[in-house]
Amino acid sequence: MPQKQNKLEIIRHSTSHILAYAVKELFGDKIKFAIGPTIEDGFYYDFDLGDKTFSADDLPKIEKKMAELIKKNLKFEKTELKIEDALKKMKGQSYKIELIKEFQKAGDPGDKHGARKKVSFYTVGDFEDLCRGPHVASTKKLGDFKLMKIAGAYWRGDEKNKMLQRIYGTAYETKQELTDYLKLLEEAKKRDHRVIGKDLDLFVFSELVGKGLPLFTEKGSIIRRELERFIVDEEIKRGYQHVYTPDLAKVDLYKKSGHYPYYKDSMYPVMKIDDEELILRPMTCPHHFELYLSRPRTYKELPLKIAELAKQFRYEKSGELSGLMRVRSFCLADSHIVCRLDQAKEQINEALDLIEYVASVMGIKKGENFRYRLSLGDRKEEKKYYKDDKAWDNAENILREVLKKRRAPFFESEGEAAFYGPKIDIQIKNFAGKEDTAFTVQYDFVMPKRFELNYIDEKGKKQEAVVIHRSSIGAIERVMAFLIEYYAGAFPTWLSPVQVVIIPVSEKFNDWGEKVLSKLKSTGIRAELDDSDESLGKRIRNAEKQKTPYILVVGEKETVSKSVAVRKRGEGDLGARKLEKFVEEIKKEIQEKK
Amino acid sequence: MPQKQNKLEIIRHSTSHILAYAVKELFGDKIKFAIGPTIEDGFYYDFDLGDKTFSADDLPKIEKKMAELIKKNLKFEKTELKIEDALKKMKGQSYKIELIKEFQKAGDPGDKHGARKKVSFYTVGDFEDLCRGPHVASTKKLGDFKLMKIAGAYWRGDEKNKMLQRIYGTAYETKQELTDYLKLLEEAKKRDHRVIGKDLDLFVFSELVGKGLPLFTEKGSIIRRELERFIVDEEIKRGYQHVYTPDLAKVDLYKKSGHYPYYKDSMYPVMKIDDEELILRPMTCPHHFELYLSRPRTYKELPLKIAELAKQFRYEKSGELSGLMRVRSFCLADSHIVCRLDQAKEQINEALDLIEYVASVMGIKKGENFRYRLSLGDRKEEKKYYKDDKAWDNAENILREVLKKRRAPFFESEGEAAFYGPKIDIQIKNFAGKEDTAFTVQYDFVMPKRFELNYIDEKGKKQEAVVIHRSSIGAIERVMAFLIEYYAGAFPTWLSPVQVVIIPVSEKFNDWGEKVLSKLKSTGIRAELDDSDESLGKRIRNAEKQKTPYILVVGEKETVSKSVAVRKRGEGDLGARKLEKFVEEIKKEIQEKK
Repeated sequence: MPQKQNKLEIIRHSTSHILAYAVKELFGDKIKFAIGPTIEDGFYYDFDLGDKTFSADDLPKIEKKMAELIKKNLKFEKTELKIEDALKKMKGQSYKIELIKEFQKAGDPGDKHGARKKVSFYTVGDFEDLCRGPHVASTKKLGDFKLMKIAGAYWRGDEKNKMLQRIYGTAYETKQELTDYLKLLEEAKKRDHRVIGKDLDLFVFSELVGKGLPLFTEKGSIIRRELERFIVDEEIKRGYQHVYTPDLAKVDLYKKSGHYPYYKDSMYPVMKIDDEELILRPMTCPHHFELYLSRPRTYKELPLKIAELAKQFRYEKSGELSGLMRVRSFCLADSHIVCRLDQAKEQINEALDLIEYVASVMGIKKGENFRYRLSLGDRKEEKKYYKDDKAWDNAENILREVLKKRRAPFFESEGEAAFYGPKIDIQIKNFAGKEDTAFTVQYDFVMPKRFELNYIDEKGKKQEAVVIHRSSIGAIERVMAFLIEYYAGAFPTWLSPVQVVIIPVSEKFNDWGEKVLSKLKSTGIRAELDDSDESLGKRIRNAEKQKTPYILVVGEKETVSKSVAVRKRGEGDLGARKLEKFVEEIKKEIQEKK
Repeated sequence: MPQKQNKLEIIRHSTSHILAYAVKELFGDKIKFAIGPTIEDGFYYDFDLGDKTFSADDLPKIEKKMAELIKKNLKFEKTELKIEDALKKMKGQSYKIELIKEFQKAGDPGDKHGARKKVSFYTVGDFEDLCRGPHVASTKKLGDFKLMKIAGAYWRGDEKNKMLQRIYGTAYETKQELTDYLKLLEEAKKRDHRVIGKDLDLFVFSELVGKGLPLFTEKGSIIRRELERFIVDEEIKRGYQHVYTPDLAKVDLYKKSGHYPYYKDSMYPVMKIDDEELILRPMTCPHHFELYLSRPRTYKELPLKIAELAKQFRYEKSGELSGLMRVRSFCLADSHIVCRLDQAKEQINEALDLIEYVASVMGIKKGENFRYRLSLGDRKEEKKYYKDDKAWDNAENILREVLKKRRAPFFESEGEAAFYGPKIDIQIKNFAGKEDTAFTVQYDFVMPKRFELNYIDEKGKKQEAVVIHRSSIGAIERVMAFLIEYYAGAFPTWLSPVQVVIIPVSEKFNDWGEKVLSKLKSTGIRAELDDSDESLGKRIRNAEKQKTPYILVVGEKETVSKSVAVRKRGEGDLGARKLEKFVEEIKKEIQEKK
């Protein structure tokens, strides 16, 4: 519903003017105003307070002032000024002046050839701001708002510029919508994988190791290993050749592939030793191509599906790092399918089959938790994309046809392709509704040329192959971050670091507890015995806090009858059953990854 | 038998003089002579031929000339000359002159305080050489010799110097011993993991990826994955916490641990980005210590056994690289056991138990294929080893006692310890008898101080822990190199990339062949069907060449009776059996890793 979207955006943007107005009223005229746009979940406004900064206490004050202003039912009124008058009016407001000059240079939206002659302002009460609008008619038309937080932000996002004070806020048409959103945020905060990761002891960071470089503890490593083995085994079952290639290579390799010029900024620095220049790999593709090229290939070998759990290294800016979600070294379940042109569609289909299967095993639902984005090139962007219009058209059509034929939920997005071809992105929604690319399937007609990825066809003639790049479970770190939040730490049994906690009612039954433990362990079930001095209730609560799927309480009756009293997470007391029976049940559950 | 060793060394060194003599006779006086020492399996002599180089054709000619000289029964005679006379005599022989001047500077062996006044020469026939001796009395006392190969070698191994021409040779007391050695070499050559690795398509190198950075193909990756999963599962069974930590870290981490000053030369260069200095890790220890330090620890948690399949990066010189044996990035099954002082012996014992178990699974026999080396520090080497004599004595005694109590085959070797403590090295012999360190168990009393690896004891008091460093299966690359040579590519079934090849006698039986294939695959057995147009005999030979453990031939009889005719590698035709029965048998064999 794009109309509603627009209305909400207008409300939010108008509220950002009220925010700036309130700040002006409270903090005086010496403040310099920067910009106040809407963002995904609300809006912000950037201020230059000189040497001062906002404090958390300021937010309620500003909110109060905003409410007062809104109550006055002030009108938003537009005026247009000539550039020179606008510059005069904004005297002292250096950010606004910089913007006005830029608008002037960029020319009028409708008239590409001339310099822009006028800019518009919006006035609400005593506050006038450079703005293209639109706005609500008057503050009566605004919805309910809330200021969220204060942050430092460089002017234009460039760390060479001054750091400004940014206030984030949000607004909704109705009070109910705002309340719902704030509740969702509250829940998302509790589910934050960084918080749960700490509570459940899944991963840590170390000042000495470095930012963006997580260390997985025993428990986090169990989850990671389960995911890794699952995907490797599944891919091998589906005919992938799972390989190991080096984490670094000569810079020449990435110059040949063309990655170096495109990704240089986020790559680690070159390491020069003797006469070699080495670099940590940002991508696996050229490594797999070198494997393909290690001997001549014929049509009989195609499709050749080379896969790897591949470490990749990208130097993200420190401000962009976030728990396991954005890291500086990650492990991607990567693959490059070298195939004949006429095999491409089938291969893309099979890759999507695998992705949907993997998603379903993890409990992620198509249409609900994820949808597809067809990420297209842009024929006008010759620097960003390899130039070959016909090949782009062809590749985009292939991907589109596959998605249509599958009746897959998808939308198209221009300018999101890789430099070597279009792609299908699998967009997963997190708990708070934010969409992120988790996996991707890419069609590549550039690398086969650059690397001469050829094969001999039935007639003994050399042919050029095409390459499908795809990730299946994505980057292990990122999918773990997603799963931690998705399950709020209550992982399905197969992924749970501890699957069973055994709790003897009293010391007398420790023996049977030990026997249960050893039986479970010998069956490959991750079990622990809690025979500590804590009370029975406390021990059960501890196991519950750790989100253990099964708690087995053993007392007199269980010892005598060689059984266990089963408490299942989320289902409560399931009653007693023979140990053997429980083992069979949980084994089946783990095997089926339910 | 050290006497025999000496005798053999004297023979070899004397033969190197005869080599130089023959070269002088054949190539004239203008040649400059460098040095001609003995080495592990023979000797060499380095020559400066000006712009010329030896060709392979020269070796038989030189051998012939050497035989002629030896036949003359020439005496080796020693003379001593004053430095100034020696310099005169060696005029034009710049390498010898450099050596004489150095000897002079270094002083007499018996007299440390004065400059050396004399040097000795040995004359045989018309050839006189600067040499400390000893030599055989006359050429009659020489054994049988053979020249092996020509190589380029920098004077003094320094690439800034001129590259000389080196001729390698060997000599034995008897013809039989020489023949045996040459046969062994021939066999070792066939077993060379680089040769087999290529024949069986296990790994490749790429000019563009870089030297010392192997790419594992599908088949090599299967072996690697089997080994990796085996060791991870076995270690977890034995109470290890298997973790994942980053492949790189801030340089500060290795400065704190002390690795940086000790290993700087073989570490990759520092990567500077923003205000951080990062480096690829040469060791895992400090990463595991940071995990240990991520929360306070009590005595109840000890021993804490942190393990990892850890990538490590060391920049070996290009001349030292060799297949998978010496690489520039390897994956070590590493562990650090943090324990109480009184737990150290038991932990070392358990580590050796694990190592011996792993070796036995791989078919490597204690005493026969490997023995232990107790690698000690050197109290006088204060730069090389952390200074704490009492701690060294104590640690060395603990390791010695453990080895003695186990009645383990071991020898002691001074100056082979790590900088932070003594260690037990597991020395594996390769096919040609060469010994190499495969695994190691180290006792460390330095890192616990540097990192403050403490725990709270029963009384609530802070105590310092000790650390046992150990590898179990060693570096995966190196153990693969060893296993390839040890088995000459005929891996046990559990490690074989292809475990079964199914061969239908003719096209008519392809259906049953397909069914056998799908049954095997669904049971997790790595099987292939060879229904190509080649003859039955050719297809069997192909499978044999690939060292496949099982070949199943299926024809009329097998199709009717739902069975397979089994040919086992090394055992030949085992006759036909029901498919179900074969599946049970091979499953058991794989499970038991026999």
